[in-house]
Amino acid sequence: MDQEARPVSRSIARMSEIVLPNDTNNLGNLRGGKILHWMDICAAISAQRHSGHVCVTASVDNVQFKSPIAQGEVVMIRSHLNRAFRTSMEIEIAVWAENPIAGTTRMSNRAFYTFVAIDASGTPQPVPALKTESAEEEARYEAAARRREFRLLLSGRLADTDAERLANLIREYPTNSD
Amino acid sequence: MDQEARPVSRSIARMSEIVLPNDTNNLGNLRGGKILHWMDICAAISAQRHSGHVCVTASVDNVQFKSPIAQGEVVMIRSHLNRAFRTSMEIEIAVWAENPIAGTTRMSNRAFYTFVAIDASGTPQPVPALKTESAEEEARYEAAARRREFRLLLSGRLADTDAERLANLIREYPTNSD
Amino acid sequence: MDQEARPVSRSIARMSEIVLPNDTNNLGNLRGGKILHWMDICAAISAQRHSGHVCVTASVDNVQFKSPIAQGEVVMIRSHLNRAFRTSMEIEIAVWAENPIAGTTRMSNRAFYTFVAIDASGTPQPVPALKTESAEEEARYEAAARRREFRLLLSGRLADTDAERLANLIREYPTNSD
Amino acid sequence: MDQEARPVSRSIARMSEIVLPNDTNNLGNLRGGKILHWMDICAAISAQRHSGHVCVTASVDNVQFKSPIAQGEVVMIRSHLNRAFRTSMEIEIAVWAENPIAGTTRMSNRAFYTFVAIDASGTPQPVPALKTESAEEEARYEAAARRREFRLLLSGRLADTDAERLANLIREYPTNSD
Amino acid sequence: MDQEARPVSRSIARMSEIVLPNDTNNLGNLRGGKILHWMDICAAISAQRHSGHVCVTASVDNVQFKSPIAQGEVVMIRSHLNRAFRTSMEIEIAVWAENPIAGTTRMSNRAFYTFVAIDASGTPQPVPALKTESAEEEARYEAAARRREFRLLLSGRLADTDAERLANLIREYPTNSD
Amino acid sequence: MDQEARPVSRSIARMSEIVLPNDTNNLGNLRGGKILHWMDICAAISAQRHSGHVCVTASVDNVQFKSPIAQGEVVMIRSHLNRAFRTSMEIEIAVWAENPIAGTTRMSNRAFYTFVAIDASGTPQPVPALKTESAEEEARYEAAARRREFRLLLSGRLADTDAERLANLIREYPTNSD
Repeated sequence: MDQEARPVSRSIARMSEIVLPNDTNNLGNLRGGKILHWMDICAAISAQRHSGHVCVTASVDNVQFKSPIAQGEVVMIRSHLNRAFRTSMEIEIAVWAENPIAGTTRMSNRAFYTFVAIDASGTPQPVPALKTESAEEEARYEAAARRREFRLLLSGRLADTDAERLANLIREYPTNSD
Repeated sequence: MDQEARPVSRSIARMSEIVLPNDTNNLGNLRGGKILHWMDICAAISAQRHSGHVCVTASVDNVQFKSPIAQGEVVMIRSHLNRAFRTSMEIEIAVWAENPIAGTTRMSNRAFYTFVAIDASGTPQPVPALKTESAEEEARYEAAARRREFRLLLSGRLADTDAERLANLIREYPTNSD
Repeated sequence: MDQEARPVSRSIARMSEIVLPNDTNNLGNLRGGKILHWMDICAAISAQRHSGHVCVTASVDNVQFKSPIAQGEVVMIRSHLNRAFRTSMEIEIAVWAENPIAGTTRMSNRAFYTFVAIDASGTPQPVPALKTESAEEEARYEAAARRREFRLLLSGRLADTDAERLANLIREYPTNSD
Repeated sequence: MDQEARPVSRSIARMSEIVLPNDTNNLGNLRGGKILHWMDICAAISAQRHSGHVCVTASVDNVQFKSPIAQGEVVMIRSHLNRAFRTSMEIEIAVWAENPIAGTTRMSNRAFYTFVAIDASGTPQPVPALKTESAEEEARYEAAARRREFRLLLSGRLADTDAERLANLIREYPTNSD
Repeated sequence: MDQEARPVSRSIARMSEIVLPNDTNNLGNLRGGKILHWMDICAAISAQRHSGHVCVTASVDNVQFKSPIAQGEVVMIRSHLNRAFRTSMEIEIAVWAENPIAGTTRMSNRAFYTFVAIDASGTPQPVPALKTESAEEEARYEAAARRREFRLLLSGRLADTDAERLANLIREYPTNSD
Repeated sequence: MDQEARPVSRSIARMSEIVLPNDTNNLGNLRGGKILHWMDICAAISAQRHSGHVCVTASVDNVQFKSPIAQGEVVMIRSHLNRAFRTSMEIEIAVWAENPIAGTTRMSNRAFYTFVAIDASGTPQPVPALKTESAEEEARYEAAARRREFRLLLSGRLADTDAERLANLIREYPTNSD
């Protein structure tokens, strides 16, 4: 890869959405599937900013939904690269819910999506390296490698001969970068 | 729980969607986020059929996207319960892509969503047990318990004292029920 | 037509939709126009599965709406071919409404749409014959011919010299295949 | 019914829509189901204007689609009452397709929808009589009665003892008011 | 410009929309941004009808929102050309809100959009002259020229040497053509 | 108003949208009306963050569209308060277009929307003062007052006795805060 490494800051994308009636279930709360969809679009913008290619979703890590977000509340999404591999990138996505009347904001979700850069024929393309510029970015960069190993294990593409090492991977499974 | 156990067949839901322009990326292929959204709606129907309650998404397991689905193709989704826990249910969702002109259909995705049954105030509600009626349903029922343990580990709600057992969980992580 | 006849089962399409706020009128019930739209998409999938061509709606028979379907209820649609003519196909579409909380399902609508198979220039294309495999399918196959004659009469493309025969057509007008 | 009769002109509704990508099939032409949906909304406005009640679709007569409407073309819809019965109204809907670049407009469809006026509990409500003010409106008023008889025959709510009379109904079936 | 002048009547476009849940804010009233969007589509139809070209929005004059329009109400929009310049056109757009139950209609908005006719490469194209056929159309034609001068002043493309003339422009700023 | 003044930073809202097929005209570029709609939603979030009330659009200043934004490009919107009046707020909205493949970003639009804070009955509510914290914020705060005077002139609610002063208002009409 002869392209210059690009900083994390270049890949930051931000999205705000108001939860409208069609986004909700029968109790008036945002459906999980709609959040996953918005996170995917925000993350795609991050991946395209870093790579300069059309990018497609390759995988979504385990996502947990803890608290409901009500109709009329504002969903804020922020995404950025954690690490670039050869043709794929791990994107970290954070979601907050804001009640604009109460003036309160709460963390809602954190997720990791993997995108692959492709050309017009769908062939994966090499992507620039990611340049970390802080200890926090460096920590996320390291955690991304462990999550990738984990994904490969889950999809059966990695031998799993060492029980201790697997146990460590789970024990230290990095779901949250701060 | 004094409600009678309900068979898997009762929870089957089927959805077909034609991939329209607004569902695609710049290469004309379906976005991953949109599949996740459709799977969530189909799975919610399964969960509500089993429980008779409004159900909300609690978690989505790791999902991998292998082959692109083009604009104009038909997405077929089929979901059913694998297991009912106390107030939550694991739903298995299978996605096929069909090219109606070529007359070909291919497996696209398989995913596991967890839903929780709630009442109007959002309080989790007990759900009926699931009655398995074949060896295949029984196998899925067992695998669902292992995936649940795995989810609890990932979310840090389970102690992880036994390295060997953790390694086994991953080694036998059931991503596919047949 | 040298293509092999294809069975009815090949053309079956199933769709489930949750009635969302934007689909309803001011009393919170599904609009008739929205059902007609969903039935059209489900029927188009059936027609394309049978013919392997892009198919366009040629006509919609008289449709009657009997009972309202409420917001939050699930609409289930099932369609299949009743008969293939030279370039057109009659598709039968059944609609059920399900209240997922009450656990009840009721028949809502039954309709007949005619589709024409076309190529990229819009020219009608011959379609494979339909192979019936049961007495019920055979009965529908026969009824489809009578409905077609009726459609041609309504559009004025058939002479109507025999009052008795016309009266019989109406008297036996097949609106329901079972 | 003590409400004053209301003129046809009061019920006229007009709608224009540009055919967008999501409204089309794989050849870039407007789907039949989408036209049916737009006609339903336009007709509902006519029915509500005449009756002053929320109105729901009771039936749609046979509709035939003759020529494709392309993406980017403009669909113009115009609807008005043909006749008010006790609680129902027949709405006539005409659809034109316009190519704004070529400056050409062509008739596309004509359809008859029946709406019923209801109150908040869904109970049918009496509607004002329709006042015709021209020979053309009078002719449509008469034709609407014959179509209604025809609908009742099709739905089996009318005895059909007289073959000759039935044959006449079809022979003179009024699909087009001008 | 050798094309024949075209009358105002040729450019009239009418649109009706029912205010659906997703169009509203948390109090159930139509969002201002949605009206602006609908006015833009209606005005684009007018501009394309007059010019026979694809037309793009060049500017929107100051728009004021006076009274809320509730969910379920009908929005009626009517637009037409006020004046054609060399490659641009001023479109006047009037918006009414109708309560179909109460049978009342009220003026809601009046706005002026400017569109430019372009060819496939995006190059502005000359448009036919506008033929006025009444004193009212003539008055609008004159007012459009004053508003255009005003727009050029606001965008800084016109020298503003004459204070008195500027003051007159504002004093007589034509926001309303009748 | 006894509520504490709130800083500009509290009202900042950011939105990113990918231009999808249904958002474009026949040349594949984003419609002006769609940008106006997105700006309205972003601005509403800013107004609600500052005021803690539901806010409705009161007016939109003259908006000019200079360069087309293509399908697949990313639209970034950023809004914040410029000034709070008694019950209304001026929101400044900036729009950028980004080509994620070329890696280029360009300024697209800048606009000023006025929102009014209301309670559940639609009555205007007093809003907290705005605290400026930099010379730039102070300059925008001043410019907002001149634009407001201008709006009142345009809507005819302010006497316009002094030609010189009016001319100055236009001459210094602040369309751009930096």
